[in-house]
Amino acid sequence: MKKLTLPLPLGFLASGIHAGLKSKQKLDMGFIYSALPAIWAGVVTKNAVKSAPARRTEELLKGRKPLRAVVVNTKYANDLTGRQGYKDAYDTAGWAGKLLKVPAHEVLVHSTGVIGVPVPRPKIQKGVRLGVAALSSAGGDDFSRAILTTDLVTKTSARAFTIGGKPVWMMGFAKGSGMIHPNMATMLVYILTDAAISKLLLDKALRESVDMSFNRITVDGDTSPSDSVVVLANGASRAKTITTTGADYRAFAEALKGVSLDLAQDVIRDGEGATKFVTVTVQGAKKDSEALMAAKAIAHSPLVKTAVFGADPNWGRVLTAVGYSGAAVDEFKAKVAIGGYVLYDGQPRKGWSRAKLKKILQQKDVTILVDLRLGKGKTTVYTCDLTDGYIDINGRYTT
Amino acid sequence: MKKLTLPLPLGFLASGIHAGLKSKQKLDMGFIYSALPAIWAGVVTKNAVKSAPARRTEELLKGRKPLRAVVVNTKYANDLTGRQGYKDAYDTAGWAGKLLKVPAHEVLVHSTGVIGVPVPRPKIQKGVRLGVAALSSAGGDDFSRAILTTDLVTKTSARAFTIGGKPVWMMGFAKGSGMIHPNMATMLVYILTDAAISKLLLDKALRESVDMSFNRITVDGDTSPSDSVVVLANGASRAKTITTTGADYRAFAEALKGVSLDLAQDVIRDGEGATKFVTVTVQGAKKDSEALMAAKAIAHSPLVKTAVFGADPNWGRVLTAVGYSGAAVDEFKAKVAIGGYVLYDGQPRKGWSRAKLKKILQQKDVTILVDLRLGKGKTTVYTCDLTDGYIDINGRYTT
Repeated sequence: MKKLTLPLPLGFLASGIHAGLKSKQKLDMGFIYSALPAIWAGVVTKNAVKSAPARRTEELLKGRKPLRAVVVNTKYANDLTGRQGYKDAYDTAGWAGKLLKVPAHEVLVHSTGVIGVPVPRPKIQKGVRLGVAALSSAGGDDFSRAILTTDLVTKTSARAFTIGGKPVWMMGFAKGSGMIHPNMATMLVYILTDAAISKLLLDKALRESVDMSFNRITVDGDTSPSDSVVVLANGASRAKTITTTGADYRAFAEALKGVSLDLAQDVIRDGEGATKFVTVTVQGAKKDSEALMAAKAIAHSPLVKTAVFGADPNWGRVLTAVGYSGAAVDEFKAKVAIGGYVLYDGQPRKGWSRAKLKKILQQKDVTILVDLRLGKGKTTVYTCDLTDGYIDINGRYTT
Repeated sequence: MKKLTLPLPLGFLASGIHAGLKSKQKLDMGFIYSALPAIWAGVVTKNAVKSAPARRTEELLKGRKPLRAVVVNTKYANDLTGRQGYKDAYDTAGWAGKLLKVPAHEVLVHSTGVIGVPVPRPKIQKGVRLGVAALSSAGGDDFSRAILTTDLVTKTSARAFTIGGKPVWMMGFAKGSGMIHPNMATMLVYILTDAAISKLLLDKALRESVDMSFNRITVDGDTSPSDSVVVLANGASRAKTITTTGADYRAFAEALKGVSLDLAQDVIRDGEGATKFVTVTVQGAKKDSEALMAAKAIAHSPLVKTAVFGADPNWGRVLTAVGYSGAAVDEFKAKVAIGGYVLYDGQPRKGWSRAKLKKILQQKDVTILVDLRLGKGKTTVYTCDLTDGYIDINGRYTT
């Protein structure tokens, strides 16, 4: 587990504790507290089936009063748990709010883990007491570990920038390694900053950065009912509030995109069973949306992903995936390159070397480029390989 | 390899030979010949990228003169092989046609195997000579073996029925075990009958039976550029020609559906690395199309499929897949049962037994039922589990 060396933004405290949800004294609940009310924005899973915490987050997003705290439990997703699941989520917020002396609706509650099993209330309630007591400005590392499930490493990223000459700090935490797919999937992301910004602009910046990061990654195509990305801005830096889309906003948005892309890529690198990081770029599509369809089909194809895993020089599977993506493709115009090595250009490259391609596929980082030569549509998505490690993890997840 | 005991319909000959495409004297080219011109119908992959043989099949379907022969080679898909690939497919038909004394356009040519590698013309040409010379009324068994790639078993099915009191016979062959997904995917299917039927009714019967069989199965969601289902009716039984949708047509259509569903299910049972056969039924959807979306999402979810493989009692993944399928779902109304054991009914079943569910999931045949309770839409699809065997097969396919 890599050690976190990044400080929290001003005015934030964090903690991670063992509430007894997991065995072996593993940290299993994480807490964030902001000394100042934090403006926030969030994006919640698009799965029609939503966990109780995800639905509650949606409700809070509608009213959108400032937030003061976040409580995360692992091991149980509190999803498909019936009406009781909602009560559990609301009560958890209430327990934390009471101890922190803030209303329950200023406490976000998130859960991640197995679906369909009620959370153990006494353990959660005890965990809330321990977590609130443990809050500290040095608690970021524990928090980053406490929110993990099948993740192998913690995922954090930060950016420093200035607003009106004042230094501000932004730091993000992510959890997620399976069930990862565009549109928020088994992923919890918390990005904290001591900058101040209007709700409207925070929404805009988050929407744009999620679209270019978390919605561009896929591990297995399964979209989880739990997952959320939230950003909290508490203004503790005392930099002036960003209210227009000028240079300050651009610096903020740039930082948010940077942190988001770092975390999204870290999620892929830590994909369940993943041994390789795959960057898929499609260009020359009729339009951007078709480039995205094509890139997602490649990134989602079990045949492409197993070939990358096995370093099997089976490049034909790439254009095959584009073929069923719904994007327009003419196999006599398209070009395919892997690791910069052109393999197909309207026809197979004469004398392409299996040995050379195999060597490229044996690298930890693999890039796949398809040029459809039909227009100007372009996009990049990220994925990992599909391995026996994934099967192993997911064939015994609840056992 | 199970031994074929089913006879060919009257007037058909078949063979399977070793052309040297595969190693170890494995049969790698298959041939079918009809003594009488056969009316035919076909369905070809919907992948926008199509193999040369698939495109040629589409062209032949447009004019649709009667067929006299089918030539299949394995090991090379003749897909993404540029203009030369087309020449190879046409020339193969020409070589066979010359030996059989029929025009090239009466010879269907199909290829299955690795994408992007040209077929070895001299070996194919020699194979055609061997295959034509070997044609016999007892050649069905060799044909059934010669068309296989990663398949572990041959797949055949037959039905006897009567038309106007005369006995007729229908027999089908299938090849396919990976890259299987609704809409024709790495699957070649040949159904032969000595019945006589009009083109129009043969089209109708094939369309309906494909929709209820081959378009209802998924192994890995990848749709291949090669695959085709064709049915040939040569009338050698001397039963009267079916030209109306009366009892004779219904008997014919029933037989075609039976053979198609047998073969489709055999493909799933032989899915790459598969250890289990999974039947997914969704009912109570707002409409049939939504039931199909939901059922396909379940059948295609790597998380559901790995849980079935590992007999992990993680039933929550089923409704999660419905949630992102696009079908309307209300998690407080829906019901989920696995192997007839209800696990969720608006909320988790009180006291459901992990041990009991695990036992159900350990069976070779697993049924998943979701009742959405929103309408009358209903469908059933078939899939297999996702296993380390699949990863192993597909991580070293070309090597």
